[in-house]
Parts: sequence; C-alpha cells; structure tokens
Amino acid sequence: MAENGSADLVKTEYCTFAEPPDGLELDSGRVLSPVAMAYETYGELNSSKSNAVLILHALSGDAHAAGYHSETDRKPGWWHAMIGPGKAFDTNTYFIICSNVVGGCGGSTGPSSIDRKTGRPYGLSFPIVTINDMVRAQTYLVADLGIEKLLAVAGGSMGGMQALAWATDHPDMIQSAIVIASAPLNGAQAIAFDAVGRNAIMADPAFKHGDYYGDSPPAKGLSIARMLAHITYLSDESMRLKFGRSLRKSESYNYDFESEFSVETYLDYQGRQFVNRFDANSYLYITKAIDYFDLTAQYGSLDAAMARVNAKMLILSYSSDWLYPPYQSQEMVYALLRQRKKVVYCNIESDYGHDAFLLEVDVMRKLISGFLDHAMHPDKLHALKPAKPVPDTPLNPSSPSTASIYKGRRVDYDLIVNLVDARSRVLDIGCGDGELLKRLTVSKQVDGMGVELSQDNVMSCVLRGIPVIQADADQGLSAIPNQSYDLVILSMTLQVVAHPELVINEMLRVGKKAIVSFPNFGYWKARIKTLLLGRAPVTRSLPYAWYSSPNRHVLSIRDFRVFCAEHSLRIEREIPLSSRGTVRFLENIRAEEAVFVISRSFE
Amino acid sequence: MAENGSADLVKTEYCTFAEPPDGLELDSGRVLSPVAMAYETYGELNSSKSNAVLILHALSGDAHAAGYHSETDRKPGWWHAMIGPGKAFDTNTYFIICSNVVGGCGGSTGPSSIDRKTGRPYGLSFPIVTINDMVRAQTYLVADLGIEKLLAVAGGSMGGMQALAWATDHPDMIQSAIVIASAPLNGAQAIAFDAVGRNAIMADPAFKHGDYYGDSPPAKGLSIARMLAHITYLSDESMRLKFGRSLRKSESYNYDFESEFSVETYLDYQGRQFVNRFDANSYLYITKAIDYFDLTAQYGSLDAAMARVNAKMLILSYSSDWLYPPYQSQEMVYALLRQRKKVVYCNIESDYGHDAFLLEVDVMRKLISGFLDHAMHPDKLHALKPAKPVPDTPLNPSSPSTASIYKGRRVDYDLIVNLVDARSRVLDIGCGDGELLKRLTVSKQVDGMGVELSQDNVMSCVLRGIPVIQADADQGLSAIPNQSYDLVILSMTLQVVAHPELVINEMLRVGKKAIVSFPNFGYWKARIKTLLLGRAPVTRSLPYAWYSSPNRHVLSIRDFRVFCAEHSLRIEREIPLSSRGTVRFLENIRAEEAVFVISRSFE
Repeated sequence: MAENGSADLVKTEYCTFAEPPDGLELDSGRVLSPVAMAYETYGELNSSKSNAVLILHALSGDAHAAGYHSETDRKPGWWHAMIGPGKAFDTNTYFIICSNVVGGCGGSTGPSSIDRKTGRPYGLSFPIVTINDMVRAQTYLVADLGIEKLLAVAGGSMGGMQALAWATDHPDMIQSAIVIASAPLNGAQAIAFDAVGRNAIMADPAFKHGDYYGDSPPAKGLSIARMLAHITYLSDESMRLKFGRSLRKSESYNYDFESEFSVETYLDYQGRQFVNRFDANSYLYITKAIDYFDLTAQYGSLDAAMARVNAKMLILSYSSDWLYPPYQSQEMVYALLRQRKKVVYCNIESDYGHDAFLLEVDVMRKLISGFLDHAMHPDKLHALKPAKPVPDTPLNPSSPSTASIYKGRRVDYDLIVNLVDARSRVLDIGCGDGELLKRLTVSKQVDGMGVELSQDNVMSCVLRGIPVIQADADQGLSAIPNQSYDLVILSMTLQVVAHPELVINEMLRVGKKAIVSFPNFGYWKARIKTLLLGRAPVTRSLPYAWYSSPNRHVLSIRDFRVFCAEHSLRIEREIPLSSRGTVRFLENIRAEEAVFVISRSFE
Repeated sequence: MAENGSADLVKTEYCTFAEPPDGLELDSGRVLSPVAMAYETYGELNSSKSNAVLILHALSGDAHAAGYHSETDRKPGWWHAMIGPGKAFDTNTYFIICSNVVGGCGGSTGPSSIDRKTGRPYGLSFPIVTINDMVRAQTYLVADLGIEKLLAVAGGSMGGMQALAWATDHPDMIQSAIVIASAPLNGAQAIAFDAVGRNAIMADPAFKHGDYYGDSPPAKGLSIARMLAHITYLSDESMRLKFGRSLRKSESYNYDFESEFSVETYLDYQGRQFVNRFDANSYLYITKAIDYFDLTAQYGSLDAAMARVNAKMLILSYSSDWLYPPYQSQEMVYALLRQRKKVVYCNIESDYGHDAFLLEVDVMRKLISGFLDHAMHPDKLHALKPAKPVPDTPLNPSSPSTASIYKGRRVDYDLIVNLVDARSRVLDIGCGDGELLKRLTVSKQVDGMGVELSQDNVMSCVLRGIPVIQADADQGLSAIPNQSYDLVILSMTLQVVAHPELVINEMLRVGKKAIVSFPNFGYWKARIKTLLLGRAPVTRSLPYAWYSSPNRHVLSIRDFRVFCAEHSLRIEREIPLSSRGTVRFLENIRAEEAVFVISRSFE
C-alpha cells in the first residue's frame, strides 16, 4: 500500500531508439534494432538538469525501483527503502531514473521480445549482451531525457558493475558513481554458481532450446537456478539466525524426501515466486553478461581501467558478502588510489551477506546522502566557517585547557593546522571523525583524504564531506603511490599501531613530509613514577593502567629522536607540547606530548 | 599404478548380517534386513586386537580408501595419501578398516540393492537412514572382525559426523575419535545446498520417482547436484588460484551459452564423472542423512551429547572451509571442555576449503600420528626420562645461564615445576611447544592441557603427546568450566596479551590457583634508562626497541602487586628472579622477571 511521504504512485514509461536503419552496436559485433527501454523516474529534474541520478538494477531487478503502481499494489519497488523524500536517494533533491536492462524481461528489449524480422520472440537468437551494452543503451535513454551529465550512477551487485562500466566507458557523462556490493570482475566461484544455474535451466525438458514461448516455460530449471542463487545472496550467519534447523510443519522428521526444513520451504517459495515474474532466457542472458564482466581483461589491467575514471567514486562492500567479497571492492579502491582518483570506501559491518545492499538502509543512507551532497556541492565545505578560531602564532596554541590533553581539546590539532601549507595534498592516517581534515580544508584549502578503521568515524567523515577510505594503517598503505601526498599526518596514533616502523616508513614513502604526534613517555611525572614507585606510569597524557591501556608502545621524545637517527629520517620540526602550550627547554621531561615534522634524509 | 611402500593391491570384501528374521533397526522405526557391508582392510590386526582404526567416508566415498584394485588400476583409494606405511594412518602399526555406508552405492545395501520382498531394486522404497543407522551397521562389521574396542574411528565431513555418532552412541566401543572438517549438526546453509541438489535430481524427467533402474538414470539432475556440491568443497581462494577467469579453448568470448570458462568445463567434467560412478538415489539418501544429523536435537543439547563421550577426541577444522566452518568445530571443542573431556583441537591454515581434509596431508600426518600414538600408548610420556635435571630446591633454580633469560634457558620453568603439586590438574595458557607441560607430566604426573595460538606449536604439542587446544586466550576461556583445574599457568605471556585483566580473571575462574610469570619492568637497568635517558627501556629481559616489541604492556613487580590488591587477588607466593636465581631483597629493582602464585581472595 502506498505510504505517505514515499515516492507514492509511479508508472513505468518506455522509450524506443536505434530504429532501423540505425541500431545498437553490441560488444559481440552484432547489432540490435530497435531497442525499447522501460524506465521510471522519481522526483523532479531541476532547471540546470544537474540533479539526475541513474539507479542501476541487479540480476532480477527491473525499472520499478520505488513507489507503487496502484493504490492496491502491496509491494513497492525493489529499492523503495532507499529512494524517496528524506531517504538515501532523496527525491526532494534529486531526479531519480531507473531503467530495465537490455536483455531483461521487465519491459526493455530482451529474448522474450518480438524479433521484427521473424515476428516471433527472439529466444536464443537474441544476441549476447554485455554490461557495457546495457550501459550503452542507457546513454540513449539519458540523452532522450535531455540530460548531458548525470550527477551520479548507483547500483548494487550487477548494478555496481554497470556503474563501473559508466565510470570507465563514459567517464565524462557522470559526476560520480556509487558501486555497492560489486566487483571489478566476476570471479571463478561466482561464474561457477551462474553456470550451474544455467545448466539447471537448459537441462529442463521444457526449455526446448529457448523456444518455449506460448508453451510452458522451464519453470523447474529456473526455480532451481533461483534457489541456488538465493543461497549466495544470504550469509551462513543470516541463514542460521533466520532458519537454523527449524522444521516447517512437524516436531519430528518426516523420513521422506518432501521439503521439511524451513530453509527448504523458503527456497521452494523463492523459486516458485521467481518463475512467475522472470523469463528463463533473460536469466541466461543476464548471468552471461555478469560472467563476461571483467574490467581487467577489457582494459589490460584494473589500473588501466581505473585510469579512465573521472567521476568521484563511492565504493561500499559488506563484511559478510561472500558472493562479491570485500577484497574485490578493496582492489578497486586501491587501483583508484594508485591512479590518484577521488574515492570514498566503507566496508559495512553486516550479517546479511550480499543482500545487505537491499537491507542495510540506515548506514547506506548516511554514506550515500553525504556523498551525493558533496558531489552536488563540491565547494560546500570550503565555504564553511571554521568551527573554532585558529590561533595565529604557529608555535603558541591559544586556549589553554584543563581537559585531558587528547580527550578534550586537541592542542596538537591547532598546531598541526599551522604547520600545513595551503592547498597542499594531505593524507591523514587514523583521521577519526575528520575534524583535523575539516579544519585543514576550511583554513588551508588542502586537498585531503583520511584513512580510518572505524565505520562510525568513516560515516562521520562522509557526512561532513571529507574523503575517506576505511583501511588499517597497520596493513600498510601499499595502494597509495610513492610521493603522492605533500604531507602525511599521524596524529596521536603512533602508540596504538602494531607496527610503528612500517607505518612511518609507509608515510614517508607516500608523502614528501610527515607529521607525527604522540604522548611523551619521557614526561617527568611518568619518569618519577617509574623511578620512585617502579611502576608503569599513569599520567594525564598516559591515562591508562598498564593492563587496560590501548597503547601498544610507550615512547619518549628522546626515543623518537633516536628512532629518526637510526632510520635516516630528518627531523624538520620538533614541537614539544604541554597542556599550557609549547615547551621550550627540558622538553623530554616537561612535554606531555610532541609533534614532529619529519622527512626522508636521502643525502 | 600401485606404488612401492603403499597399501598396494587390495580388494573389497563383503559381510552380511541382520538376516531375517533379524534386522537392523533404524531411527525411522523401520527395519532393514538383510544388510550387506562392503569393506576393505589395510595392515594387520595385532594379537590383542587393540590396533584397529575404522575409517569413515564422506558423501561420495566408498570402502576403497587406499591402495589399488589391480596392477593396471590408475586411481588409488580416496584417502590413499593418508593410509599406508609411514602415513598418517600407518599400516605398519595399525589395522585399518573402511566400509561403505548403508544407503550407499559402493557395495553396501542401499536403494539400488535388490529388495528380497519384491525381487526389484528398492528405489525410493528404501528406508531413510541416519548417520546413527550407518554407524549401527558398522558395529556389526566390527564385531564380525572380532574387535571389541576400536583404537580409533576417523573421518572427514560426513565421516566426521559418523565419528561423532560413534563417540556419543557407542562411547565404550572406541578409545578415540578423529573428527575432521565436520560439524555437530548440518546448518541451514548446508541443508539449503543439499536441498537444491535433491531438487535437481528429482526434477530430471529420467528420475521417475526413483524407479529408473534398468533405464537411463537421471544423469543431468545428478550432474547438476554434483557440480553445485563441488563448489562448496572448494574455497573462493582455491577457485581463484586454480581457474580464475581463464577460458578453456579460445582467447576471446564465444558469445553463446556453451561452457567456455575453465571453471565451467571443470564442473561439467566433475558432473559427468560422478554420474558414471554414483547412484542418484543414494545421493538423495545420503544427503538426507547428513541433513538429519543434529547432536543437539538428538540429546537435548550439545553439552548433553558431549557428556556421553568417553573417547579421547581429536577435532580438526580448516580455516577456509565454509561448508563446515571452523566455528562449528570450536563449538564441539568447547562443549567437550565444559564436560571435562579429553580433546585436542587445531584449526589448520589452508586455502583448500572443505576439500582440505583430502589434501592437507602433511599437517594431518603430524597431528593424527601423534594423536594415535598417544591413544595407543597413553603412558608413554610418563615413562620418558626428564629431558633436563629438575632442580631440587624450589627457590633456587640451579644452572645460571648467560643466555637471554627467556630466549634460552627458561629459569621460570624450573621454578614453576617445583611449585606444582603432583598429580594436579594443570592448564597452561600460551603453552608454546608444550615443554613446560611435558616437564610437569614427567616429574609431577600432572593431568595437563595446553592452550596455544600457533599452529606449529600445537603440532609440536600433539607430536609429544601433550593435550592442547588451539585458541586465543584473549578471547577468554569461557568454554572451560569454573574451578575445573587445580592450577592455571600463564608463563611469560601476560605482557603480550591484549586484555590482561580478562585473562587473569578467567584464569582464576577456571582454576583454583594461578601462576603468572612476566619480565619485570621495574628492573634497575630498565629504570635507569628511563630516568637518565628518558627512553623506553631495552634490557636483557626486555630486549626489544619500543617500535618492534611484541610486548603490549609493561609492568613491574610492584604494578602486579597493586593490580592484585585492587582486584582482590591473594598473592600466595612471589618469586623474583634474575638470571642468577631468586632475588631476596629490593626485588622490584633487582629482579629481571617474577613468578607469582595467586588465588581469588573470597573472604
């Protein structure tokens, strides 16, 4: 039933192009003509036509992404939770388009369409289409709607592959791309599942080499293919929680071969439902398009593919997705970074498996709305007023604070802002909620990016428009090219990383200079406790007991100096700090923390 | 071709039992009569009949586990790499038996057997069998071979389920059980895959409700079931490495629906091969038996099931097995521990997925041969001579050493051995290669178990007969019941665990007393460096630089005393040590390490 405030009543529209003698040229070399596209739109196109977002559907999706088709319609579009007023794709702001793919069975030209040459359905005479072919057809639709450049393309699973095809094949037609639960190529395991599904369809005697229209379709085969695929959309954990070993009807086993476990009857139902709404030939064509998707083969390498991207990219993966596991998204993120592209990445913690792209609505809303807002208004952040006044003398942070030195006011932030050159490229390792990068962007107009492990912090960064990738600095920054940043910052993080040597080496590989701040274990209060009491120190800047400290390393200003000397690092600046400001003598004793600017000493 | 030194030429034998009017009573309430069992044996039964090991096969296995059937036979038995002279199941020492399961199609009575009542194959009139039914049939065979008690039962996957059924349903007929890549129940995801496979078979028009004997079998359906199951036996990683996206014949895509990726043609081949050697009805019955397997439902809970076990248990899982993931093995290990059973556990690092139980031969050889040797000779370790003389005065470890205090001679070991009561129950957290437990077993006849994270160390423990489970102490010892040990030891490990507070609390929950040893950060050389140099200390007992130390915590004797006071822990003994022996005054300054005996002070 249509809700208030939702995309409400919508209807599917159609556009036809590539009429003979023209045609849509396909990757196979064949030509399809004419091509009809079923599509829906939600929200209003603005006068400058700059707010259009194209939604791209997955294997079994269609043009009906949101809203209801009638007052009595009980089921909304497939991404209704994500599209509408105030939702991730906010129809108060954006003009949303969704079209059915070529090869599909939701109104666009596909194997069940009538071939004008024969007057009969294409069946298997329909040409094989690729993800790029699907996208090429979409470019006609977008042009037909009078849009020269899309604000964004967005999709999950096969929809993410289409977004990648847009970004690599039509880089100047989109401002940004959102790639969710997807992959740069379909791997061996995913091909294997698709192949078994196709085998099940083609083994069904009702299949008749695809020529079953007007007769019974290969329902058993398609149902088996769907049941199988459905398993890959869930996770072991979600199936355990949803079904476990519960039995559908009885308390005890039937001792026969009827479906009796709840998970069996659920899959039976999924199979039956699917058969009613989907064409088996389209299933073959679309899974084949997915299997053929491989950016690395198409462009020679993933890096060569990503080198073509002009769009800002948002890449999202899910921790429990085993169909397109997070590492496949991460490979794309790293290739984009190597190619110095703008990318935001988050691996969303979820039990839902691949289906999470339909279900993790709250997290996606934050990440996508923040990302789209920044895509629409790239200069918004720079136009913000600084949240707090920035001190004007670099070595004397203004406001003394009585709060814990790095739980309350971050004395080192003020100092660091003053150490950074305007308009420089800055990487902040362990960037937290993006506060320092925000200050640097506002005051110094830096081109900044953060690296952060915590999902909450990543969401905060994206919401405030700070580019960020979710990654563990301890696993290296190997994706980031040599000397690609002017400055790399590691603020109050050195003492908690597992491998400080690796992290500092990586910082000075990717950056020309590094700023490192850390609590000074040489601080007199710490030393006196060690000497007199023979105990591990607890002070204001080292506020934890030995047994509950997140700090994996204790080091002093002097330790860090020796480390730099031993590792051929040049100390360009050394700024010892207490809560009252910079410390000018006996710094290893008097400073509670320290900020170092270091570089590689190559001579 | 038969190799030298292998099990060589073997032949399948048969035994028949439960002849009318007797019969094999099944869990369903039906009775099967008569029952034939196909089996093979390798090696010789000793005169005391105490060296018999029953091997239990998985879904598609049979009685032919090792050796060759003829001189021209090109393929040996399915576990040939594991069974033979010098192999994991050493035929020079053990008498190995393997039988085909009831319901199978490898010579034992199954749906393709002739039903004497009708003179025709059973087909679907064959009764549903369970894993327990399979095992009950095996008890007849074992009795027929004159064996009262098996030294061991061992199997992977469904073979592991049979081993579990032996251990819970016939606890006094086995000395030990080896459960590999298995689970205490078939979970929702595993049931789902089985159900899709059964659907594929039953959807094949050649299936004819199971009555296809003498006609064409449902080859397409069975082939699809096998292809699907085969995917679950591999891992994403192994498929990526083995196939990737390579094409079978051409350099470029065919743009049709023939199999073209290598992974497709591989699965086609697996499907075709399987159809030639396996009966579709047996596939239905055996997958149903697997789906019905659930120790928790059978006995009310996993703990109630494990309470029945008398055998020593070896449980092995594989890191990349997603059909029966490691957590399912761990649940069994923890239930066994809660029930105070003898269990050894290792989660073997492997990319091979579920199939690792057929492939990770080297690691399995070490673990299984060590475990079997200990099962055969439980008193062997006690009979060993102590490796090194144990000092006779508890507080004065004899040999001073010039080696690094805990890289060379472990001064604290000698001391700890003297602190332990004879014949007490001892748990050693972070037991390393089992050296301390070995010394305690030899000198004090303790009933010891180790907890260790490193796979290599776990293997060393098993090879020397030390019971060990692979686990992370930082994740708690929650499976171990309250006060189930007299003593829990944490030797030179406190400083590297992430959560010392949790670990110590857990030690004193599961043990009446605890011994903790650690390097003393209060040692004068460490302090002087801190005071004078203002640097993190590097000394003989703290030999690492701040940036490369595995130590996550620095603490001193005094820190630990305060910790005990604050946490209501009673210090029963406190023994400060230097490399020259115990330290009798100024211990927080002069001791390089310390050994504490602590208990919970309840008053």
